[in-house]
Amino acid sequence: MAEGKVATYIPGLAKANPDWFGICLVTANGTAYEVGDSRQPFTIQSISKPFVYGLALEDQGRQHVLSKVGTEPTGDAFNSISLEPGTGRPRNPMINAGAIATTSLIAGKTGPARLRRLLEMFGRYAGRDLALDDEIYQSENETGHRNRAIGHMLRNFDILTTDPIPSVDLYFQQCSVSVTAYDLGVMAATLANGGTNPITGKQAIRGEYVESVLSVMGSCGMYDYAGEWMYTIGMPAKSGVAGGIIAVLPGQLGIAVYSPPLDARGNSVRGIRVCDALSRHCDLHLLNRPSPGESAIRLKFTGAELNSNRIRTPEESQALHHDGGQIQVYQLQGNLHFASTEAVVHDVIANVDQIRHLILDFKKVLTLNESACRLFYEVLNKLSRLDRVVLFTHAEHLPLLRRYMKVKLGERYTELFRSLQENDLALEWCENRVIEAALPSRRDARSATPAQYELFENFTPAEIDVISSLLQRRTYQQSETIINAGDEANELFFLARGGVSVFVSVDSVSRKRLATFTGGMVFGEMAVIDRAPRSAMIVADTEVTCDVMSLGDFDRLGSTHPGIKIKLLENLSLCLCRRLRTVNRKLAVFD
Amino acid sequence: MAEGKVATYIPGLAKANPDWFGICLVTANGTAYEVGDSRQPFTIQSISKPFVYGLALEDQGRQHVLSKVGTEPTGDAFNSISLEPGTGRPRNPMINAGAIATTSLIAGKTGPARLRRLLEMFGRYAGRDLALDDEIYQSENETGHRNRAIGHMLRNFDILTTDPIPSVDLYFQQCSVSVTAYDLGVMAATLANGGTNPITGKQAIRGEYVESVLSVMGSCGMYDYAGEWMYTIGMPAKSGVAGGIIAVLPGQLGIAVYSPPLDARGNSVRGIRVCDALSRHCDLHLLNRPSPGESAIRLKFTGAELNSNRIRTPEESQALHHDGGQIQVYQLQGNLHFASTEAVVHDVIANVDQIRHLILDFKKVLTLNESACRLFYEVLNKLSRLDRVVLFTHAEHLPLLRRYMKVKLGERYTELFRSLQENDLALEWCENRVIEAALPSRRDARSATPAQYELFENFTPAEIDVISSLLQRRTYQQSETIINAGDEANELFFLARGGVSVFVSVDSVSRKRLATFTGGMVFGEMAVIDRAPRSAMIVADTEVTCDVMSLGDFDRLGSTHPGIKIKLLENLSLCLCRRLRTVNRKLAVFD
Repeated sequence: MAEGKVATYIPGLAKANPDWFGICLVTANGTAYEVGDSRQPFTIQSISKPFVYGLALEDQGRQHVLSKVGTEPTGDAFNSISLEPGTGRPRNPMINAGAIATTSLIAGKTGPARLRRLLEMFGRYAGRDLALDDEIYQSENETGHRNRAIGHMLRNFDILTTDPIPSVDLYFQQCSVSVTAYDLGVMAATLANGGTNPITGKQAIRGEYVESVLSVMGSCGMYDYAGEWMYTIGMPAKSGVAGGIIAVLPGQLGIAVYSPPLDARGNSVRGIRVCDALSRHCDLHLLNRPSPGESAIRLKFTGAELNSNRIRTPEESQALHHDGGQIQVYQLQGNLHFASTEAVVHDVIANVDQIRHLILDFKKVLTLNESACRLFYEVLNKLSRLDRVVLFTHAEHLPLLRRYMKVKLGERYTELFRSLQENDLALEWCENRVIEAALPSRRDARSATPAQYELFENFTPAEIDVISSLLQRRTYQQSETIINAGDEANELFFLARGGVSVFVSVDSVSRKRLATFTGGMVFGEMAVIDRAPRSAMIVADTEVTCDVMSLGDFDRLGSTHPGIKIKLLENLSLCLCRRLRTVNRKLAVFD
Repeated sequence: MAEGKVATYIPGLAKANPDWFGICLVTANGTAYEVGDSRQPFTIQSISKPFVYGLALEDQGRQHVLSKVGTEPTGDAFNSISLEPGTGRPRNPMINAGAIATTSLIAGKTGPARLRRLLEMFGRYAGRDLALDDEIYQSENETGHRNRAIGHMLRNFDILTTDPIPSVDLYFQQCSVSVTAYDLGVMAATLANGGTNPITGKQAIRGEYVESVLSVMGSCGMYDYAGEWMYTIGMPAKSGVAGGIIAVLPGQLGIAVYSPPLDARGNSVRGIRVCDALSRHCDLHLLNRPSPGESAIRLKFTGAELNSNRIRTPEESQALHHDGGQIQVYQLQGNLHFASTEAVVHDVIANVDQIRHLILDFKKVLTLNESACRLFYEVLNKLSRLDRVVLFTHAEHLPLLRRYMKVKLGERYTELFRSLQENDLALEWCENRVIEAALPSRRDARSATPAQYELFENFTPAEIDVISSLLQRRTYQQSETIINAGDEANELFFLARGGVSVFVSVDSVSRKRLATFTGGMVFGEMAVIDRAPRSAMIVADTEVTCDVMSLGDFDRLGSTHPGIKIKLLENLSLCLCRRLRTVNRKLAVFD
């Protein structure tokens, strides 16, 4: 393929080798793929325009920039002057007139200061320092009469309010920035990634202006080829006369191609073909999105299907099995925007009659925008009026949600916006309310006598006396460690008063609760059974009183009182069996 | 707000009440929200153009349509003639000239037949039969001189090859179709939903042409306001002079507004304001997409972290704990397109040294396109060359994947494309290979003597004799039901030879495996412990030999041989304890 002609209107450009051919694709996650001459330097030319437009938006604000440069495609060629009748406002920032007007808006007191600002901006996008190609710059400067004419025309219409020549000069400089296809790929990916360079993690442009930059690329980036480009390739794009071209698929990836021969419209021939092939091959057309989009509901279950890690008595478990359906948990995921959140809200409202407690779990949510916050606010408001409770969990990484609720709820914020760190704790809180309502007169689970211990069920008073003589009473302060992971397992604990929790370390600072026990329950039994070192840490949640049986006494019981040992082991099996059934039921929820 | 003027150039339109105001938003899932006069009929006018364009693409193919009508925005007003110099091809199908050329491409032998085709097409989009407003049609027909002039001009350039008047007449008819804002909302949502009406579930246009329809709406739909519209509102849109306007956010939703007063460009004043407000409020700008997009990896775990439901011996469990890291499972989710799949593939390749068995689970995948298939093919190809095994599970609902692999793999298809229905079975298959490699000389798990039963561990030969006398040998044919759910639990089973599996019914046709046991293991013990009816069904996987102990003998053992009963209960507790640890470990994976 040897179609197209290397640009010659700037003498410096004519020296390019027409065979140079480089392609680079960079994902919004920062993975780069490159082939060919992707590290061959060339000048950015008109591809600078959208980036400088973004900087102008940051420097002057959208309103002022729009008063100087429009956003309408012209259907005309790149060097058309296309000023709006009457106002003299250039039609859009992608034609030269609009680009010169845009460049004039860059902040800075002196020419060198403004150039430095421009180069720093390009550097943030590319993730490395970029510099001018001086030869091309001189060449542009010497031959840029048409652009100087445009500058004076803009001055005539008061679009430029001072001497146009420094702005035209800065424009020549921005066009002469030396880049590679790899650089442009990263720059395009930065736009795809909401303005943050996905490799360095540094912000190149404020996120709110990215859509404006991409909009002008989308409607005007390919000059009089823009409509056909959108039709066939379907990504905002920009080309330059040195033979570069970039395309951006928002949220996904950036593409850059370098190949100097140009078609009659000034676009790289191979650049267009590569973008066309990639778009077709990889289904990158912006308007060809799968429907109806990802589901924001990762998992949905009730308090009857999955319980908190608080170990319940059989009576309590029965109550939760019966009434736990009043607790509805939505585990959300992905990017929460209007449409994805609307589907969640729609589902909640459709089931509102069943729901008394709603838990919204944000652990797997990547991002959330204001329209999603508004919908969650509406849900909270509606459910509160119906006397339902809404709990938000794992929402610390989404400060926008808290801020939004604070503003909207005002003085009702503390009462209504219940945000808990852990799903497990939220579930436990809701369960407690369900159990209180179902079993208003149940035994106080905070204390138990040996006759009430779950492992001593069906024991005769005489057997209780025998086994009680083997128990040693021990007390612990709140937060005291009762068992350490790695300890030898030589004791079995019966909880007489208070609560204890089992934790495993997640990392050096955080730990995860595996279980919480209350009065009457046995703990520390598993390591005793399989004679393994303690696998987790057990801590007193409150002041705690325990009855402790040594492993020796437990073992000896078989020869001294086999009948008691058998009852004890039967109760132990029953207890393990119940826990196994509970965990199996939990597991089924995740399937 | 009383800005704008009701259109008067067609006398019929002038009768509209300027206060009529209806809004309808329909999600790509088919949920409709409407306010105001959303059921007030009015004529579709130019909003018909993109829909007719879609039908022309279906009738004539993209290439032929493009030879008659371009895709470039003109920056000119709706009634501009804008023919391409030389070819006479109208610049785009959204201006009247392009629309008339498009209408002429609709298939059908007679005028009424073509009108019927058009009305059927509109009806598929709207989900109900639509009809002409005859008064408006007469009115259009009587005053449409300019459009007739355009028709003759198109005939002059051979864009129309026959008498232009029937096509112009059909164009007047398509503009006179009577709709409501609700209808237009559903029609827009149909485009957002890839061409399928989300309420009726019926296809209105082939999915492959939706991007083309949306492209011309995006670049040319709002006439000389298209650029600013894309910049501020950012959705493909189309307006009509009766005061209707639609906007589409692909994959997410459609919006329709009806309010007759128009601005100088012929767009509904309130329509634009509503779209602007909704876009801002709900963050609907097409180019403002969160980055880097949803993760396609729902969950990732190894065969050391989570095992299949086949119950393993302690020795086998140890081997899996040690070597299970060679099995890597990726649970995928959402819409798999290039960028989301690339992230998965990138992760697989980065970990390829650890992976010997790769399981790709598609259960939670909503859609998958060809570029995703291509990437999975690349992974399969690369891993096969490295002598790794790839298994695909739950991929039945994605026939494209199978077809793609069949074409690409050719005669290697049967060997390389391993697709299993269940993740659990895939995991078991991989585990078996890992265990075979780790324990080449392990005991044949297909049969066991009573001395080898897990519950008789540490029994003396004399104790084995005693307990064996209580066992009753029983055999089952392959697939025979051993235990039915709901049965009374009065027996304990020791598996001497063969394999059995525990199933629960998922629905009337399918069942789910909870566990598989092999020689030496106990089953049916849980219901015996908690004296509950059988909770699941147990079936012989092979020919099976069991030793069965009655509940009566089990209970009596405590008084006749307390020492044996204690050992039995200790082994039972140990066995339950191990299963509880395994299930807890599984549960941690899902957290």
